Amino acid sequence: QQNDSLAEPIIPAEKIELLKNINITFGMRMDFQAYTFRGGDNYYNGIQFENGFTALGISGKVHEKVSFQFRNRFNKNSDVQTLDRLSSNIELAYLDIKISPSFDLLLGKMSAFYGGYEYEFSGLDVLEYNDIYGNALAFVTGAGITYQASENNKFGLQVLNSRTQHYDDLYGDIVAENIQEPDWPVAFVGNWRGKFFDGKLQTIYSLSHSYEVRKRGTTFLTLGHKYQNQDLSLMYDFHYSYEEVDTKGIVTNLLSEEQVAEDVMYIENWLRAEYRFSPKFKGLLTLMTSSAYDNVKTSKQHMRTSYGAVPTIYYSPFKKIDLRFYLAYIGRYYDYSDYAIEELGASSYNKNEFRLGFIAPLLLL
Amino acid sequence: QQNDSLAEPIIPAEKIELLKNINITFGMRMDFQAYTFRGGDNYYNGIQFENGFTALGISGKVHEKVSFQFRNRFNKNSDVQTLDRLSSNIELAYLDIKISPSFDLLLGKMSAFYGGYEYEFSGLDVLEYNDIYGNALAFVTGAGITYQASENNKFGLQVLNSRTQHYDDLYGDIVAENIQEPDWPVAFVGNWRGKFFDGKLQTIYSLSHSYEVRKRGTTFLTLGHKYQNQDLSLMYDFHYSYEEVDTKGIVTNLLSEEQVAEDVMYIENWLRAEYRFSPKFKGLLTLMTSSAYDNVKTSKQHMRTSYGAVPTIYYSPFKKIDLRFYLAYIGRYYDYSDYAIEELGASSYNKNEFRLGFIAPLLLL
Amino acid sequence: QQNDSLAEPIIPAEKIELLKNINITFGMRMDFQAYTFRGGDNYYNGIQFENGFTALGISGKVHEKVSFQFRNRFNKNSDVQTLDRLSSNIELAYLDIKISPSFDLLLGKMSAFYGGYEYEFSGLDVLEYNDIYGNALAFVTGAGITYQASENNKFGLQVLNSRTQHYDDLYGDIVAENIQEPDWPVAFVGNWRGKFFDGKLQTIYSLSHSYEVRKRGTTFLTLGHKYQNQDLSLMYDFHYSYEEVDTKGIVTNLLSEEQVAEDVMYIENWLRAEYRFSPKFKGLLTLMTSSAYDNVKTSKQHMRTSYGAVPTIYYSPFKKIDLRFYLAYIGRYYDYSDYAIEELGASSYNKNEFRLGFIAPLLLL
Repeated sequence: QQNDSLAEPIIPAEKIELLKNINITFGMRMDFQAYTFRGGDNYYNGIQFENGFTALGISGKVHEKVSFQFRNRFNKNSDVQTLDRLSSNIELAYLDIKISPSFDLLLGKMSAFYGGYEYEFSGLDVLEYNDIYGNALAFVTGAGITYQASENNKFGLQVLNSRTQHYDDLYGDIVAENIQEPDWPVAFVGNWRGKFFDGKLQTIYSLSHSYEVRKRGTTFLTLGHKYQNQDLSLMYDFHYSYEEVDTKGIVTNLLSEEQVAEDVMYIENWLRAEYRFSPKFKGLLTLMTSSAYDNVKTSKQHMRTSYGAVPTIYYSPFKKIDLRFYLAYIGRYYDYSDYAIEELGASSYNKNEFRLGFIAPLLLL
Repeated sequence: QQNDSLAEPIIPAEKIELLKNINITFGMRMDFQAYTFRGGDNYYNGIQFENGFTALGISGKVHEKVSFQFRNRFNKNSDVQTLDRLSSNIELAYLDIKISPSFDLLLGKMSAFYGGYEYEFSGLDVLEYNDIYGNALAFVTGAGITYQASENNKFGLQVLNSRTQHYDDLYGDIVAENIQEPDWPVAFVGNWRGKFFDGKLQTIYSLSHSYEVRKRGTTFLTLGHKYQNQDLSLMYDFHYSYEEVDTKGIVTNLLSEEQVAEDVMYIENWLRAEYRFSPKFKGLLTLMTSSAYDNVKTSKQHMRTSYGAVPTIYYSPFKKIDLRFYLAYIGRYYDYSDYAIEELGASSYNKNEFRLGFIAPLLLL
Repeated sequence: QQNDSLAEPIIPAEKIELLKNINITFGMRMDFQAYTFRGGDNYYNGIQFENGFTALGISGKVHEKVSFQFRNRFNKNSDVQTLDRLSSNIELAYLDIKISPSFDLLLGKMSAFYGGYEYEFSGLDVLEYNDIYGNALAFVTGAGITYQASENNKFGLQVLNSRTQHYDDLYGDIVAENIQEPDWPVAFVGNWRGKFFDGKLQTIYSLSHSYEVRKRGTTFLTLGHKYQNQDLSLMYDFHYSYEEVDTKGIVTNLLSEEQVAEDVMYIENWLRAEYRFSPKFKGLLTLMTSSAYDNVKTSKQHMRTSYGAVPTIYYSPFKKIDLRFYLAYIGRYYDYSDYAIEELGASSYNKNEFRLGFIAPLLLL
C-alpha cells in the first residue's frame, strides 16, 4: 500500500484548478478592554477579554465567469430569520456572475451597497461604529448589479429585502395606524465609486430608499471621501438618514415601549486618519458625531448628539502576514437635548474605554 | 526566506492523498418570490427574496474502506436537540464503512432510507414538498446497512432514533392516556432500489415502522418509480403513512391545542416530469396530491386533500458548472372536507406563487 | 478552454505553502446507549443513538512564528455569550505566537491550563467526566504564556475571563449580600508539566484562582500523574476545588431555587488505566470519586459522594487511520449524606449504562 501511494502522488488537474481558486480565511479581532460608563443613571465599570470579530470565510472562483463568497461570523446570533431564511451569523452567501467585462450580477445575501469609508472597512477593522452603522442592517438578501463605467467610475444598483424578519416578528406587537404590513419590504440602493488624481482622491457615494412598512420607509444618503498618499490616508463621511419609521432604535429607545418612533432623522460626520510612521507602526484617529431628531415633519425636536474619538496605534511585528496588535482609547459622549432630558427623562452620559488587542485577517488556503 | 519557500514547493505525499479525497461543496438556492394566500381566513400577499437552501458540505474518503459525510444547512435552526445532541442544521454527520465489496455500514446522523424520488432529490432541487416530506423528520441518528445484491438490486436497512428530542420536549405537555414515554424511540427502515431495462426504469421502495411513544407509532410505505431516457425523465411516487400518533401535524393542527391527533392516515401521489429541450433549457412539471384522515380505526374521517402543481423552467448558461436559473409557478390548493369545515372551523384556501431564482451545487475543492 | 486548463496545472508556490500548513479535522464519537436510573425519585430507562462529539477543527501555521486553532463543536449551543461574544460551540479560536524558542504567547478563546489527565484528553475520548470537569467552564477567552524551561519541564500561566456571560445573565436574579458584580471576572491559572525517567512518568499540576463575583471566587488545585510504558498507561488525578460561590452547581441544585450555594468544596480522585492487548485491541478502565461539601467555613456539611467506573474495550480495525469501535459500561452511584437526605430531601441513586459506538478523529486535509 505505501508503495502505491508514493508511486503516484499526482493531483488531478481538476483538483488543481479548484485548489488554485479557493480561498479560506479566518478573521480574528480579540482584545482586553477596560471601560467606565458615567453620567445620569449610568454608573458601570467593566474589565474583560472580548472576541470582537471571529469569522470563517470561504470564497472561490468556481468558473471563469462565476465566483462565490461566504462568511460565517461567529459573534452573531444563529437564529434563522423568518423572512430570508438565514441567520445573522451568515453575513455573506452570494454569487457574483460576470455578465460582460464591465457588468457583474450579484445574487444572494450580501452587504448593501451603502457608501462611505466607515462602511467600506470590514467589521474586523472597526473598533467602534458611529450610531447609524452601529445599528443598521448591513447584510440582506437580494440582487445587485455593478457597472465599471470607466477606469475611474463604478456604479452599483441593488434591489434587496429591507429586513430579514417577517413584519409580525418585528412590528407585530406595535399598535399604530401608520405601521401596516407591506406587500414588499424592499430596499433600493445605488452607489458610485469614483477615483481622481490617479486614485489619490476616491469617493463612495450612495443613495437608498427602503420600505420597512406600508408606504413608509427610510431615505439614506452617504457621501464618503478618501485622500491617500504613500503614508497617509484621510477619510471623511457624511450621512443623512430620514426615517418615517425609526430603524436605528436610538429615538425609539427614548420613548415608551410598544411604540416605534416615526419621522426621525439622523445626521452624521465621521473622520478617520491613518498615518504609517514606519513599516511596523501606524497611528490612527477616528472622530465622529451623530445627531438624532424626532418629529422631523412637525416640531423637529433635537433629541441627542453623540460624539466619539478613537485614537489607536497599530504594531505589525511580522512582514509576511498582516497581524496587527493595537492599543486604542475609545471615548464616547452621549449629549441629550433639554427636551429629551426634561420631557423623556433621558440623561447625558459618557463612555471611556481602553483596549489592547490584535487584528488578524488570516489566509489559511 | 523567500528563497527557501521557492526552493521547495513540494507537497508531502500524505497531503496529496488527503487533498485528492476531500470534497468541499457549497449548495445554494436563492430566489425572488411573490405569493398570495386566499380563501377562508387566509388573505395574505408577500414579495421577497429568500435563501431556500444554503449549505456547506464536507466529505472525504479517509481510508480505502472509510468515507465520511458532513452537511451544515444554514437555513435550519441550531438548537442542540436533547436526544441525539446535534441541531437540525447539521443534516449529515456519518461514516460509511465498506465491510465487503457489497456491504456498507453507515453510522451517525444520516438521512433515513425512505423511498420515492421526491425524497431522492436533495432539498436544493425541490421548490415545494408534498405534505408528508414537507413535515417529516428526514435526518436522524442511527446505524444502517446497504447491500448491493446484484448490479440492479440494492437493499438498505436502518435502525434509527425516531426523533431528535426527548419525550418531554415533544410530548411532555400532552395529557393523553395513550401517549407514554417509551424506553426506545426507535425507527426501522428498509428499502429496495431496483434497475430494469438497462436502468431506464428504476424503483425505490421503502417500508418503515417507527415508535414515537410507547407501543404506538407510524407505518410508512413508499413506492417510487422513475423512467429515464436521453432527454426525458418521469417519476411517480405513492406514499401511505398510518400514524397512531400524528407526526406530520396536519391533522393535529386542526384540533385544539395541547393535544396530538391519533390514528391518522396520509395518502399521497407525486409526479415529476423533466424534459431537456436543449443543452441550456429544461422544462419540469411536478404534480401532487395528499389526503389526510383522522380516527382511521373508527369513523375514518376525511379531513382534507391538498393539491399542488409546480411547472418550472431551468436555464443553464454555463457548460462547465451546474448553475441553473429557474422560473417556477407554485400552485397549492388545500381542500378541507365538510366535516373539517363544519365541526372544526377549517376553511379551504389556496396559494399562488411565482419564483425566479438560481440553483447552484458548487464544488469548491 | 480545456487545453488551457490542462496545459498549466501548476499550483502557485504561496498556495503550496498554505496547503502544507493547514489542517482540517473532523472528530466524531457516536454510540448506541442503553441506561437506567434507579434510586429515590429516580426511575428512568432510556435506549437511543447519540452523537457524543461532533466537531470541525481548522488549524494552521500561518507564519513561521504564528499558528492558529479553531474548533466548532456542534453538540454545544450556539447562543452568543454576552461577555466574550462567542457561543459555547466555538471551543477554540486563538493564536499561538512564538515569542522566543521557549516562550509562546496564546491569545483568544482557548482551554484553561487546568491540570490532570482527565482534562488532558479531548472530549472525544472521554465517555463520562467526573463531577468537576463535567460541570466546569473549560473554554474561555484570555491570554496565556507557556515556557519550556527545559526538555522535561514546561510552565504555563494564563489570565482569563472567569465566565462567558455577563453578571446579570448568570447572577442577576439572585438576591444575596455577598453576590455582587465585580469590575473584573478574572481567572488566573498556572500549570506545570513535568517528565521523569525518559518520559515514562509525567505530571500535569495546576493551581488557579478565579473571581466569579466581587471578592469571592474559586481556588482549584489539580495534581495529575501518568505512568506510561510500551503497552500500559496509568493515570491518577487528584482535584481540590474550594468555591466561595458554587460554580459546579452540584450543591446549589440541592438548595431551593434562586439561590447559589456558598463556601462549597469538591474533592476528587480519578484513575484511568489503558492496556494495549494487541495492535487491534485495547482495554481501558476509569474509576472516579467526587465528594461535595457545603458551608466549608462553618459546619462543613458533607453533601454527597459520587462514584464512577467505566470499563471499556477499544477495537481498531484499520492500521492507517485511528478509527476505534468501543464497548463500554458506565456505572455511577450518587450517594447523598444523611444531612442531604434528611434536611434537603435528596435521595441516593445510581446510573447503569452500556454503550457501543465509535471514536473517529479524522484528518481531512
